[in-house]
Amino acid sequence: MTNKTALVISAHSADFVWRCGGAIALHQKRGYDVTVVCLSYGERGESAKLWKQEGMTLDKVKTERRKEAENAAAALNAHDIQFFDLGDYPLELDREAKDRLVDVIRKVQPQFMLTHSKYDPYNTDHMYASQVTLEARMIAQAWGHNPGEKVLGAPQVYLFEPHQTEQMGWKPDTFLDISEVWEQKRAAIECMQGQEHLWDYYTNVAQNRGNHFRRNSGGQSGGRAATHAEGFQSIFPRTVDEL
Amino acid sequence: MTNKTALVISAHSADFVWRCGGAIALHQKRGYDVTVVCLSYGERGESAKLWKQEGMTLDKVKTERRKEAENAAAALNAHDIQFFDLGDYPLELDREAKDRLVDVIRKVQPQFMLTHSKYDPYNTDHMYASQVTLEARMIAQAWGHNPGEKVLGAPQVYLFEPHQTEQMGWKPDTFLDISEVWEQKRAAIECMQGQEHLWDYYTNVAQNRGNHFRRNSGGQSGGRAATHAEGFQSIFPRTVDEL
Amino acid sequence: MTNKTALVISAHSADFVWRCGGAIALHQKRGYDVTVVCLSYGERGESAKLWKQEGMTLDKVKTERRKEAENAAAALNAHDIQFFDLGDYPLELDREAKDRLVDVIRKVQPQFMLTHSKYDPYNTDHMYASQVTLEARMIAQAWGHNPGEKVLGAPQVYLFEPHQTEQMGWKPDTFLDISEVWEQKRAAIECMQGQEHLWDYYTNVAQNRGNHFRRNSGGQSGGRAATHAEGFQSIFPRTVDEL
Amino acid sequence: MTNKTALVISAHSADFVWRCGGAIALHQKRGYDVTVVCLSYGERGESAKLWKQEGMTLDKVKTERRKEAENAAAALNAHDIQFFDLGDYPLELDREAKDRLVDVIRKVQPQFMLTHSKYDPYNTDHMYASQVTLEARMIAQAWGHNPGEKVLGAPQVYLFEPHQTEQMGWKPDTFLDISEVWEQKRAAIECMQGQEHLWDYYTNVAQNRGNHFRRNSGGQSGGRAATHAEGFQSIFPRTVDEL
Amino acid sequence: MTNKTALVISAHSADFVWRCGGAIALHQKRGYDVTVVCLSYGERGESAKLWKQEGMTLDKVKTERRKEAENAAAALNAHDIQFFDLGDYPLELDREAKDRLVDVIRKVQPQFMLTHSKYDPYNTDHMYASQVTLEARMIAQAWGHNPGEKVLGAPQVYLFEPHQTEQMGWKPDTFLDISEVWEQKRAAIECMQGQEHLWDYYTNVAQNRGNHFRRNSGGQSGGRAATHAEGFQSIFPRTVDEL
Amino acid sequence: MTNKTALVISAHSADFVWRCGGAIALHQKRGYDVTVVCLSYGERGESAKLWKQEGMTLDKVKTERRKEAENAAAALNAHDIQFFDLGDYPLELDREAKDRLVDVIRKVQPQFMLTHSKYDPYNTDHMYASQVTLEARMIAQAWGHNPGEKVLGAPQVYLFEPHQTEQMGWKPDTFLDISEVWEQKRAAIECMQGQEHLWDYYTNVAQNRGNHFRRNSGGQSGGRAATHAEGFQSIFPRTVDEL
Repeated sequence: MTNKTALVISAHSADFVWRCGGAIALHQKRGYDVTVVCLSYGERGESAKLWKQEGMTLDKVKTERRKEAENAAAALNAHDIQFFDLGDYPLELDREAKDRLVDVIRKVQPQFMLTHSKYDPYNTDHMYASQVTLEARMIAQAWGHNPGEKVLGAPQVYLFEPHQTEQMGWKPDTFLDISEVWEQKRAAIECMQGQEHLWDYYTNVAQNRGNHFRRNSGGQSGGRAATHAEGFQSIFPRTVDEL
Repeated sequence: MTNKTALVISAHSADFVWRCGGAIALHQKRGYDVTVVCLSYGERGESAKLWKQEGMTLDKVKTERRKEAENAAAALNAHDIQFFDLGDYPLELDREAKDRLVDVIRKVQPQFMLTHSKYDPYNTDHMYASQVTLEARMIAQAWGHNPGEKVLGAPQVYLFEPHQTEQMGWKPDTFLDISEVWEQKRAAIECMQGQEHLWDYYTNVAQNRGNHFRRNSGGQSGGRAATHAEGFQSIFPRTVDEL
Repeated sequence: MTNKTALVISAHSADFVWRCGGAIALHQKRGYDVTVVCLSYGERGESAKLWKQEGMTLDKVKTERRKEAENAAAALNAHDIQFFDLGDYPLELDREAKDRLVDVIRKVQPQFMLTHSKYDPYNTDHMYASQVTLEARMIAQAWGHNPGEKVLGAPQVYLFEPHQTEQMGWKPDTFLDISEVWEQKRAAIECMQGQEHLWDYYTNVAQNRGNHFRRNSGGQSGGRAATHAEGFQSIFPRTVDEL
Repeated sequence: MTNKTALVISAHSADFVWRCGGAIALHQKRGYDVTVVCLSYGERGESAKLWKQEGMTLDKVKTERRKEAENAAAALNAHDIQFFDLGDYPLELDREAKDRLVDVIRKVQPQFMLTHSKYDPYNTDHMYASQVTLEARMIAQAWGHNPGEKVLGAPQVYLFEPHQTEQMGWKPDTFLDISEVWEQKRAAIECMQGQEHLWDYYTNVAQNRGNHFRRNSGGQSGGRAATHAEGFQSIFPRTVDEL
Repeated sequence: MTNKTALVISAHSADFVWRCGGAIALHQKRGYDVTVVCLSYGERGESAKLWKQEGMTLDKVKTERRKEAENAAAALNAHDIQFFDLGDYPLELDREAKDRLVDVIRKVQPQFMLTHSKYDPYNTDHMYASQVTLEARMIAQAWGHNPGEKVLGAPQVYLFEPHQTEQMGWKPDTFLDISEVWEQKRAAIECMQGQEHLWDYYTNVAQNRGNHFRRNSGGQSGGRAATHAEGFQSIFPRTVDEL
Repeated sequence: MTNKTALVISAHSADFVWRCGGAIALHQKRGYDVTVVCLSYGERGESAKLWKQEGMTLDKVKTERRKEAENAAAALNAHDIQFFDLGDYPLELDREAKDRLVDVIRKVQPQFMLTHSKYDPYNTDHMYASQVTLEARMIAQAWGHNPGEKVLGAPQVYLFEPHQTEQMGWKPDTFLDISEVWEQKRAAIECMQGQEHLWDYYTNVAQNRGNHFRRNSGGQSGGRAATHAEGFQSIFPRTVDEL
């Protein structure tokens, strides 16, 4: 019997850590195989600290960013991490790159996918990655794309938490309790040596989302005692047998 | 051990049939006790066919509407149906009526609640009922309201399907498979003698929502073979242990 | 044969002039009987100039405002103008006042209705009037409200142009060419002695809406040569035999 | 004297049938010449049934899909159907393909255009076709594009009904009575051999839109007795001489 | 010369502390006189901890809540705090209570006002307070309301940060650096003995809003080194002499 | 000491005149250096009058449009105007053109940027320019883009006023008093010989925005006596020390 699977599509190599590190660790623990695709290293736009060092080059930045991401993925016990190295600021996918993404989607056959918010005026790479994810998901569902391969079903696409949520028009409809894997997420966060200014920021986020989990699971009469949580926005409706 | 419970708040006495009759029958089958509150009979505004009869009076209309609603509730095997008889077109709840609604909520302690869409320019009773439901839920959560009573937790509020969904800004995020109770829902629909023009309309709705269920559960690779479904929009985020 | 009819519901006695004076004059010319209901005189909140005069009283303000509104209605050749004198800032309608409004609606049996925008943070009377209009329209449609009276059909409700349109979230979907009655509208505007600062403002509006009319009727290849227009937002979908 | 004209821009070769087949047949009957442009055959993404057959090839699928679309167009009595064969899943238009579309628009000089909804997370081809339609319309209006040709006026763009309307944020503002051509639409639908699972679905849609037509044309007092209708969302405001 | 002034309208007695305590302390320091109006004590709905104590009564809860609020106001050095004691869950203002609020507004003549978000499905008191604030501001501007009194100008209304911002559709457009008064805000927060579970929550919020302040004032090139901030959403446009 | 700077990104060569001519003149007067980038001349799509002349060529149109724009820039005393000559209807920026735009942004280091609205179904060039501006701003902030250059901070992006504002979903949150430079703006407007039909249109706009300035700065009690104003919508939140 094969494991259940999930797929994370991250514009830059650190996004998956802050935004859904808990979901990765938790689903691994629940028996899922979680694959992470980093479309770029964020080498130009999200590596300010490295670029301030003397004699820095694009290759050195990429190497460093890759190392950090691999360490974080290991801390989260992610099943697989793939680096597409497509460049950032701006991120661009030509037809070949899109097909490569479709190949991964089909191979993984994820129960659900995770990616960026629909809108982000600060970071157009993010919203582009979100749009490309929907396009690739559609292609992966096409019976005429590489006929003979197993076509994709209809996995949910969850948009993970962006920075400055309200500016992105992002509204979470699902809170995931990540209390039991918080230590792993914090460890992964600390792998991000170049962005230490965000460690406490995303710790605060996780704690406050824990409060939201408690509120929404029980109100003033006492909800589930989650200490840390992550929020997600669903693109598609759910199909259920019980409300 | 007590059953799980659910609560439907319906502006007029027929709304619960078209909009969530399947959910009522299904959850009863799953062991829930489902209570229906009809805030009015819809005696003035939704009983055109009766009013066209010679010698009709408000009392006769109410009696007729009550009978139909009771029959429909029976067809759906609803646990309880209560008629608040508050008048319609317009529906108005004073403080006493709100407290009465709070009392029912607290008594039922529902796992989830069902009511109307947030907006309805055709029928202001509907959006008023939706707004009052949120207000009553809030009061039911207050420790200082009738201290000593058991306060309400944080049940989801699902908005059931309005007529002309797009005009109401209603967007379903949850589809419930009601295939196994469709015959019951159709039977309940047929109790609504005064609104026969809607029987086939809501049969079409149920069939097409079945298509949406299949699409969202499986896409082109074949989803779950639901023949009939109902759609719901959630007000609050879900709290989960697995995405 | 009876004339076609239209009904304007105006929160304060001057609103109908700026916002749909052209529509009134034009439809009168087309053979409609247009009735205007002024829910209040705008005596407290929209009569600053009068209140700055020595010895002013509420009654004097009302008398003055009524005179201006009657003059304006005459200039527009309105069929009828009714003053409900319900008070303003805030405007409030109890059940009796609502029933009175319903009576007018039923009596007029309008082909279409005109009222305020759905939202107005500057002037809560405006959005309240808009909401009450929908409620009264619904009651007027009820077969059980004063059984025996002719019930209302399904007239369109057009929201006329508010001040500072973008702040109100008002988006016109219909432009009416009022070129041929512009002189009448200007004359009506000049009846509003107390608000002279708005004469040129609404003349500018009418000219620029004329530009929008031309654009949308013909683009760069030359549209209809309207010099003045008014914009409206529809609440309900249209039913047509040709697109 | 030349006929009035209309133009349908369809991402895949079957879209025009489900979404505006009634409008095509009806306007042909009213004396319009309606041209249909199929940007692709939907050969990869919307032909699952064909691909499940042994030995299927892309060319065979295209041939089959073209045949079905031509049969449907004939059933609707469409004036012209053109196949751009640009590929699907994803659909992409380079500058040359856009110019080709502009050429058709200028040649047809449509009174109105029909295309897809603005948003569609299930099918990015649909929203791309909608966006390209606006771009091509704009180019067709430019006096400096192929100077000497007749420039386009300002035709309305109607967005036809998508699948799962609420998920697309699509809100119809216009209902067209297609009762008198329903048999033609049903016949066209039955030409779509590969998508038989949608026949009843879109029959249900047409019946329920008929109910919406009746409601919006007359409310409870009895509207126009339409049995079938289609809904459309307008992009641009209308310009009228009477409300 | 008189001081500049500001006015906070808080549904329950603790809201002003979490949501704009920093703004109060800071503007006091800048020479403003800040008045706080608590429409209710939050005695029924926001005092769970007190109600769990033996022998608690409504009066005791109010007394306790008032003491906490007064202490917090003192910690923030607020100019004045007024308790309207109108009841909560639900909060309701009759005409007299509205007039009382108008009186305060006119007396204070605030440069700006602070209140709740427009929407809050968890807490209808909050959205009601927001709506009443707009209504009272409008009345305070009316020359005919208590003629002879100084009418209100056009102060901005800032909506302060609600709990679970995204669920309320609240989007901050203004970040205020409260670093220099953070200690005061924390002290005020710690006056709220009954809601200790929120102390760290709102400390996290203040720190993360500090990050947003830095981002928006400088991006990756280093913004202003704010450690704590508060966010606000403006209702009205600003009028400026320089962008 | 160097001047403060601002940057205008205009899809076609006339846009900056109508939409932010006042802001340009005013900030120049306040000591800013304002640079204008015209991505195209609008030679194909916005030069109808020229194309109607005998023997017109693309080069002649461009020359004429450039002359008009330079004259207008001079009238506004703009510091610099640059023509990218990228073509219009449609406007397209390849990677090289984007890099060129980034170079200008970095060289100017603007305190704020001005560009088009997010949405424009009439003119897809406008919304494309708006989107590219955000992308170029992001690239200009990247430490790894042309390492060694001074990276961009976090300048506000203001969306200037589109034609038919409500159709674009544009909502101004900032009104700028341009009374003192109105004569300059009118002079610049009159440089646009090819679009004389818009002279009075944008004069009306400026006057009515003046009314909005007065309303929002003072209400009925008398605001600042601005005669002309321009409106802008901010993309990013402001960071302030006082509300």
